Amino acid sequence: MEFKLTTNQLKRMPTYLDLLRKLSSNGVKYISCQTIADCLSLNKEQVRKDIALVSSIDGIPNKGRNIDLLIKDIEIVLGLDNGNKAILIGVGSLGTALLKYNGFKNYGLKIVGAFDKNKALVGKKINDIEIYDLEKLRNVIEANNAHIGILTVPSEVAQSVTEMMIENGIEAIWNFAPANLTLNENIIVSNMDMAQSLATLSHKLYIKNMKG
Amino acid sequence: MEFKLTTNQLKRMPTYLDLLRKLSSNGVKYISCQTIADCLSLNKEQVRKDIALVSSIDGIPNKGRNIDLLIKDIEIVLGLDNGNKAILIGVGSLGTALLKYNGFKNYGLKIVGAFDKNKALVGKKINDIEIYDLEKLRNVIEANNAHIGILTVPSEVAQSVTEMMIENGIEAIWNFAPANLTLNENIIVSNMDMAQSLATLSHKLYIKNMKG
Repeated sequence: MEFKLTTNQLKRMPTYLDLLRKLSSNGVKYISCQTIADCLSLNKEQVRKDIALVSSIDGIPNKGRNIDLLIKDIEIVLGLDNGNKAILIGVGSLGTALLKYNGFKNYGLKIVGAFDKNKALVGKKINDIEIYDLEKLRNVIEANNAHIGILTVPSEVAQSVTEMMIENGIEAIWNFAPANLTLNENIIVSNMDMAQSLATLSHKLYIKNMKG
Repeated sequence: MEFKLTTNQLKRMPTYLDLLRKLSSNGVKYISCQTIADCLSLNKEQVRKDIALVSSIDGIPNKGRNIDLLIKDIEIVLGLDNGNKAILIGVGSLGTALLKYNGFKNYGLKIVGAFDKNKALVGKKINDIEIYDLEKLRNVIEANNAHIGILTVPSEVAQSVTEMMIENGIEAIWNFAPANLTLNENIIVSNMDMAQSLATLSHKLYIKNMKG
């Protein structure tokens, strides 16, 4: 089964997954699209379409779909079932926060190693994740079969560090640096720019207060 | 001076700010748009337009603009000059990571208090930020003149917690919860969904590997 979800469909999948996992852990066995829609304040038809697209089973009338099978189906679509391995480069303030964050495993991501050019950090561990010298980049990527590179370096080195990741086998960049990366189109990039997001918020607040 | 930047212009501002601050701290006094463009691998004309829009001064021929004045101008446009105060609700794994993150102050944001429904956390401090009982929400917001609410709660309570923030005086929501908030249009929202961003990355990697 190969299918590509739209951006909006994709965006809703983690929300479904969160809800379904919570219900499953509370012992709920079956769920209807109506109930999912109600719990999440979403449109019922939209939920029906989303779920039909990813679900490998049909619902049982008046009962709904088996929650655990539905969770598995969504995990497969999100590529979470085979455990994505990532390395992180840039153990500054944000990199450290991400290494300490324990929520990634809910989305199938495991950080297998961190890197920094600061030699004083090399050999230390944060949240049980070792910090390596950049010279070990290829070794760590290959030994762990890591495909994702988490980028938490300053903006002015973001492009060069990304290129180094790619040369050493990384296929997908999760970019937390405030920088627009220029990359070959076969490289996957997802941007997560806190500075931009906060700047947008601050600017809107500034405009609002100017008007008010 | 009141002007509204486009989303793309806004997105580039923190990148300019990062670069200019770094150059300024290295003793550089003047900079041209050409140099900014070169340092950031951006289009020169785009940089020229962006800078002209926010700068209160003209550049000096063959020298460029005064860096420190340009920094101030960008800070004003981003609403960073008057120090945005924020409260955070939801001291779970992500909330804790954000409280520990020291990079927000570069963007003028100060978290003045955190909240959680778990009474066992109340009274504790993370990175010198106190965790309060939710009953104190209005007090803390008013005493600190906080306008921004950082939302790091589970998706199923995101909407209700947001409404509680707004009832108590918050005007702008920085939403880290994997949930789409339905709000009155005078409330400012900026979404920062790590789960969605990671899901997008994972799904693209899944599609790529299916094809490969």
